[in-house]
Amino acid sequence: MMLSYSIERILEIVGEGAECTGSFSGKINRIAALSDSNSGDLSFLGNSKYLKQVGESKASVLLLPKDYEGEPRDGQLYIRLENPNYALALICRDIENMLDPHPAAGIHPTAHVEEGAEVDASASIGAFCYIAEGARIGAGTVMEDHVSVGRQAQIGRECYLFPRVVVASRCIIGDRNRLLAGCVVGSDGYGYAPIDGAHKRLPQVGNVETGSDVDIGANTTIDRARFGTTFIGAGTKIDNLVQVGHNVSIGRNCLLVAQSGISGSTEFGDGVIMAGQSGVAGHLKISEGTLIYAKSGLMRSTEPNEKILGLNGENANLMYRIFILQRKLPDLFKRFDKLEKYIESQK
Amino acid sequence: MMLSYSIERILEIVGEGAECTGSFSGKINRIAALSDSNSGDLSFLGNSKYLKQVGESKASVLLLPKDYEGEPRDGQLYIRLENPNYALALICRDIENMLDPHPAAGIHPTAHVEEGAEVDASASIGAFCYIAEGARIGAGTVMEDHVSVGRQAQIGRECYLFPRVVVASRCIIGDRNRLLAGCVVGSDGYGYAPIDGAHKRLPQVGNVETGSDVDIGANTTIDRARFGTTFIGAGTKIDNLVQVGHNVSIGRNCLLVAQSGISGSTEFGDGVIMAGQSGVAGHLKISEGTLIYAKSGLMRSTEPNEKILGLNGENANLMYRIFILQRKLPDLFKRFDKLEKYIESQK
Amino acid sequence: MMLSYSIERILEIVGEGAECTGSFSGKINRIAALSDSNSGDLSFLGNSKYLKQVGESKASVLLLPKDYEGEPRDGQLYIRLENPNYALALICRDIENMLDPHPAAGIHPTAHVEEGAEVDASASIGAFCYIAEGARIGAGTVMEDHVSVGRQAQIGRECYLFPRVVVASRCIIGDRNRLLAGCVVGSDGYGYAPIDGAHKRLPQVGNVETGSDVDIGANTTIDRARFGTTFIGAGTKIDNLVQVGHNVSIGRNCLLVAQSGISGSTEFGDGVIMAGQSGVAGHLKISEGTLIYAKSGLMRSTEPNEKILGLNGENANLMYRIFILQRKLPDLFKRFDKLEKYIESQK
Repeated sequence: MMLSYSIERILEIVGEGAECTGSFSGKINRIAALSDSNSGDLSFLGNSKYLKQVGESKASVLLLPKDYEGEPRDGQLYIRLENPNYALALICRDIENMLDPHPAAGIHPTAHVEEGAEVDASASIGAFCYIAEGARIGAGTVMEDHVSVGRQAQIGRECYLFPRVVVASRCIIGDRNRLLAGCVVGSDGYGYAPIDGAHKRLPQVGNVETGSDVDIGANTTIDRARFGTTFIGAGTKIDNLVQVGHNVSIGRNCLLVAQSGISGSTEFGDGVIMAGQSGVAGHLKISEGTLIYAKSGLMRSTEPNEKILGLNGENANLMYRIFILQRKLPDLFKRFDKLEKYIESQK
Repeated sequence: MMLSYSIERILEIVGEGAECTGSFSGKINRIAALSDSNSGDLSFLGNSKYLKQVGESKASVLLLPKDYEGEPRDGQLYIRLENPNYALALICRDIENMLDPHPAAGIHPTAHVEEGAEVDASASIGAFCYIAEGARIGAGTVMEDHVSVGRQAQIGRECYLFPRVVVASRCIIGDRNRLLAGCVVGSDGYGYAPIDGAHKRLPQVGNVETGSDVDIGANTTIDRARFGTTFIGAGTKIDNLVQVGHNVSIGRNCLLVAQSGISGSTEFGDGVIMAGQSGVAGHLKISEGTLIYAKSGLMRSTEPNEKILGLNGENANLMYRIFILQRKLPDLFKRFDKLEKYIESQK
Repeated sequence: MMLSYSIERILEIVGEGAECTGSFSGKINRIAALSDSNSGDLSFLGNSKYLKQVGESKASVLLLPKDYEGEPRDGQLYIRLENPNYALALICRDIENMLDPHPAAGIHPTAHVEEGAEVDASASIGAFCYIAEGARIGAGTVMEDHVSVGRQAQIGRECYLFPRVVVASRCIIGDRNRLLAGCVVGSDGYGYAPIDGAHKRLPQVGNVETGSDVDIGANTTIDRARFGTTFIGAGTKIDNLVQVGHNVSIGRNCLLVAQSGISGSTEFGDGVIMAGQSGVAGHLKISEGTLIYAKSGLMRSTEPNEKILGLNGENANLMYRIFILQRKLPDLFKRFDKLEKYIESQK
């Protein structure tokens, strides 16, 4: 991917408030990590972990936080901003629009829209998409290929559905949602009743509804409610291969990182974060701002802003101490044996 | 979703043996959770955890277990039954048949059935389905859109395949199976032999076979055997995003909850339960009735009805004790240091 | 699956260096596990765990390691080889070619190739495949049905893509890759910047690139880089339902077992092994030969050949000791209480 950005254009994109130190007169051809940069590259400090790499970076232009101390080399330009991460995002959005322009409105000749479905004239429906009876597709929404929209399902405005997304019958997708390839919205909830030793299916007649600005990751699955609605609040971002059980309700601006899972009927407040491969049991109330660390299991309801760590969902500070102390268990057992023997010998 | 059920129709559906207390003369418009109910709603007590909510529920009709004590309010009807969960399931099945009637028999004009495949005249094949040579589709089976059935594969009678299910070549699906969106039955097993530092693929020429009444969750993957058969016993219900390795054999009426995984060649007896995000190593025998708790890892074979907890698959009772005691480790280390110093001072 | 192999043909396939003891004059009809074999079956010892089953096996022909001691029964043939596993693989490859012959070159009438895409004349494009503008498909590559190849994407030579694989725009797949059903290569990375309490998307404008001989499992997801490339080294084999985050770089000949996950920007050396359901945090360097055990979480960079176990990624030997000692915690606490009381009574 070869770019060609002038410094003027970069400054135009990142907007006002940027402070420039040093100078670079060529074109930006590439975006690269600090340690992987060369002349002609733009790089950035987005994570303080890489602070030391700034001085050694060969990038020609660097996006840096306002409080970064240090000076550019000859022929190097520092651009200091409130939020280098977001400034880079603005540049990447410009690149994205160039690389992946939205397809023209209209329905691909290989797609199939059943009678009684309504597709807005400004929507773009890709190859081999299937839109069932009674479904409605909002203005400006784009579907790439092989997307499946079930009966009576509704997709909001300006959504982007990647290849082979499934939105099942009666589910409702809010505006500006991004549904990544292969995700399934509205699979049956996992509900069975034991009858004479067998598991009888409990029909799942509810749906899934998402607020605006929700993202759903690749091959993630969100189950429809047994009755009522499985709900995903506005601004919540879900990563790949996540499982959301039936009748779950997620607040606004939550983050569910890859391979995390939520059992049925649990409610999340706003701003809850589940790190990768973490899990939450069913029928709980997880209060706003709760943070569940990677691979942890949460088995109880929480107070606001709790931090949870470990298989059994302990307070994170306690669990960090336990992790340190368990390394000393071999030594503790030895010391204890020795002490016990000594006491015994003194009796 | 607005319903309109008379009490007479509700009683007809839930069948004989229901005991009514109180009365409600209107129509049921909605099914809702106890705490979320209003006049015109039907609710139920399916989990004793919510026992206290019954008395406060504003639902007009409540399905309750026979031993529930307490009396309805004015204008409220209690229906006591053996199994309120299952009674609700019967009502939901009625709703499901209304909301999602089975499509008519026949092959959608956009579907493609290769020559030499046999589709029963009573089956329904949805848009963009692909049925390869030699495949056979049983009577009354429904496929929604984008389903892929490989060469020589067989699908039983009265199965329901949701969008973009894959049943790969030579796999055999039993009667009344429900395969949820995006699941893959018959992907290659993960088998390699180290040859000169590289991993040489071991071709996987077996298949997958399922008994009757098996459910397979959305985006779940079940690998074909290296040779012979990966087998899923009758009545087993598999949730979303589950991995079943090659040559695994699962008994009858097992439950594999979301994101659980089973390594190759392990055998399960009947009625084994794997909770969410749990895992079982390969080449083991997991006896009937074994229960593996959420996020636990089982690394050894089991006796019948063992309960397994923890990353290292301990006896659950022991592991619960360990969870409690590890919280006391910081205190134990302090007490021990103090005791050790005291003894030292007395020497 | 009924086979018919003569002993001569078997020996021809497994090649030179095989030592025969005993004799069997019939045809081989089936391949089966040692304990599941009968007359007419070929079996093998591929895992020393099953050593004791060799003597009791009823298989007519057994593939055994050179150092196996013991003699065949009457009518039984032992074939001793360097690598019985690989010898079986060669036989299975022969069976696979017979059972699943590569489809003829050409484009299925239901597939859609956009103008400006280049499909090699020797490639085979299955039903309902979609190849976008500017994509290139190499010689001898096979796609089964419902495959999606995005704009400007490149697929190498002699690849095999199973049903409904997605290779998104600008991604580059090396030669001889096998992409299993439902995997997604090139989904957007999970990147957001917090702006005024909301999560603003960081556009992901990079791609994914794989070396030669890479396998990617069913429903696995590999995210495109934020900028630059998410890279999978030659010979690396990825199992089902694995998550690879954006900007990850994987070395050569690594193994990522089912349901494992790697967070963004982490780099792997060659020959790293992640067992099932394990996870690695982001922005780390995992040195060559690192082994991460099942369900373990690795939160730090490693030295070559480290072995990692446990939720908090401990040294495996230490963690095994901790697992043993934690079982003794209930006893330790009792002993300690007793000792403490005794000391107290002596004061």
